[in-house]
Amino acid sequence: MIIDCHGHYTTVAKDVQAFRDAQIRGEAPRVPQISDDQIRESVQPQLAFQAARGTDLTIFSPRASSMGHHLGDAAANLQWSRLCNDLIHRVCMLFPKQFVGVGQLPQTVGGSPADCIGEAERCVKELGFIGFNLNPDPSGGHWTSPPLTDRAWYPLYEKLVELDVPAMVHVSASCNPNFHATGAHYINADTTAFMQFLTGGLFKDFPTLRMVIPHGGGAVPYHWGRYRGLAQDMKRPPLTDLIRDNVFFDTCVYHYPGIELLLKVVPIDNIVFGSEMVGAVRGIDPETGHYFDDTKRYVDQVPSLNAGDRKKLFELNARRVYPRISRLIDRATSAPQPAV
Amino acid sequence: MIIDCHGHYTTVAKDVQAFRDAQIRGEAPRVPQISDDQIRESVQPQLAFQAARGTDLTIFSPRASSMGHHLGDAAANLQWSRLCNDLIHRVCMLFPKQFVGVGQLPQTVGGSPADCIGEAERCVKELGFIGFNLNPDPSGGHWTSPPLTDRAWYPLYEKLVELDVPAMVHVSASCNPNFHATGAHYINADTTAFMQFLTGGLFKDFPTLRMVIPHGGGAVPYHWGRYRGLAQDMKRPPLTDLIRDNVFFDTCVYHYPGIELLLKVVPIDNIVFGSEMVGAVRGIDPETGHYFDDTKRYVDQVPSLNAGDRKKLFELNARRVYPRISRLIDRATSAPQPAV
Repeated sequence: MIIDCHGHYTTVAKDVQAFRDAQIRGEAPRVPQISDDQIRESVQPQLAFQAARGTDLTIFSPRASSMGHHLGDAAANLQWSRLCNDLIHRVCMLFPKQFVGVGQLPQTVGGSPADCIGEAERCVKELGFIGFNLNPDPSGGHWTSPPLTDRAWYPLYEKLVELDVPAMVHVSASCNPNFHATGAHYINADTTAFMQFLTGGLFKDFPTLRMVIPHGGGAVPYHWGRYRGLAQDMKRPPLTDLIRDNVFFDTCVYHYPGIELLLKVVPIDNIVFGSEMVGAVRGIDPETGHYFDDTKRYVDQVPSLNAGDRKKLFELNARRVYPRISRLIDRATSAPQPAV
Repeated sequence: MIIDCHGHYTTVAKDVQAFRDAQIRGEAPRVPQISDDQIRESVQPQLAFQAARGTDLTIFSPRASSMGHHLGDAAANLQWSRLCNDLIHRVCMLFPKQFVGVGQLPQTVGGSPADCIGEAERCVKELGFIGFNLNPDPSGGHWTSPPLTDRAWYPLYEKLVELDVPAMVHVSASCNPNFHATGAHYINADTTAFMQFLTGGLFKDFPTLRMVIPHGGGAVPYHWGRYRGLAQDMKRPPLTDLIRDNVFFDTCVYHYPGIELLLKVVPIDNIVFGSEMVGAVRGIDPETGHYFDDTKRYVDQVPSLNAGDRKKLFELNARRVYPRISRLIDRATSAPQPAV
């Protein structure tokens, strides 16, 4: 079984974004009514890519760049998060073999992470979600929140631990003209979060908290020696011990040399397969003739990856990081399959 | 000849930092009197590393983390920059075969890049410097300046072009608790600057402007496929064309797999040798028994690097990026060598 831990609902019906735009303009728009047919139609690209690339199940969350925590107040962002999460839930109900849900949190600028607990509980207990996207910078590129290791985040972490769900550290759009969203802000946030985890004592306080750093861990694997050296200079434990049960990188790296490096330096137990499909880069690589984000192809080409490692990367690690997935897989595989 | 394009004066006499600290406290301290012996003494670590590692010449600039553009006002930062630059000049005069100077610019929060023109001219014309460190975020982690492609920077670029000197894009310390300086802020700035160059038209306006992105280009080589794909999606030229005469990465990547990847994906003409010595990571890698920042060892191990490529990476590219270096090398090699 091949589990893609990083897919966003980037193909949602246009009415949904129009609602958000109107909401942010202060127009109190009506919540859009999206039919099951519209939802089925909207995820055809993902289903086609799954089939073409040979992946089975996508851990699916609302479009990251549309979370826009910097745009709305607490009430607006809660309404928006609920709407986005409900749509993910409907996708997962219509295609229970192909999608499992990960939720958007109603974070805000200046708000407390504790404000997200209610929606987090609803997502897991009512919608069957198995994780969340956690935005380390709700300000959208101004980085005004405390680091992820700060106690301000702890009430939310307590809930994640209680629910036994991980968080993917994932920023949203950038309103800082210095940071291109998918080319700089996303990658910087990944690097930043890792360094916060390296320096802070978060996982001493939450030994079972699990964080997924997407986009191949930002700059971290490329600079693995730098981080090993910094950890050593700071008298921190070796990186492999620091991350062992708590920090995981996905494989959203869009060329073979990058994936090769990732698999060379990061322990296999700390890598989960992901493609970010349909996502940041949509084109076909003229050098290979294949989609840039068809990351399974790169992984498949790494000669050093044996069958046991492959199974960890494509399935077992995801089951360990997202333990709630196993129940859903069992349920989905025993259920009748709806027409695609 | 082996030219290390990235060395900072991190071993400066303690009185110098004490002056800056007092200045920032508003105490109007006396400028410290540093003797030639103190300067000779202070650079012994660099000289020892040069000898041990087999590098010849270091392009040497003031300590990056001490620039602290966010700490002082225009007058204080100008005084501090002049002091730091003068010390670099003295190192270069005492050891003309081992060091050439790169300057610190008196940037400030909210100040105009044009304010740096006077010190830039002094550094090149009076001190014989061959380049500058340009801080894309004088706010120290709040990113309140316009992107490097914004016209606000153009007056300074005009001067750099006129003087025929490059800039290394290099932030200073971080006052944002989210960003560890050497583990996140430095690397993020590199990634950010590259993406600005990718999206903007800066090098159309300044076809001879040259920018060095340190720390191996931040996250960029690891995500080379992502950047190729983003450029393609945005209808920008291929990356290799975009960077050809204008953007260069150094080799400050502290493990073999990272250097291997850098040399695999980035054109050899766009890589300059650097070590950041004595710098961000000071320890010895227990996996190799050698210093993490002994980057020449990694380069030397890359089997695909032929003699012509080596000469480009270690010398010719630096001569091309920093054309003023050649005159200094000729002068230094014909001068009598002072006692070390």
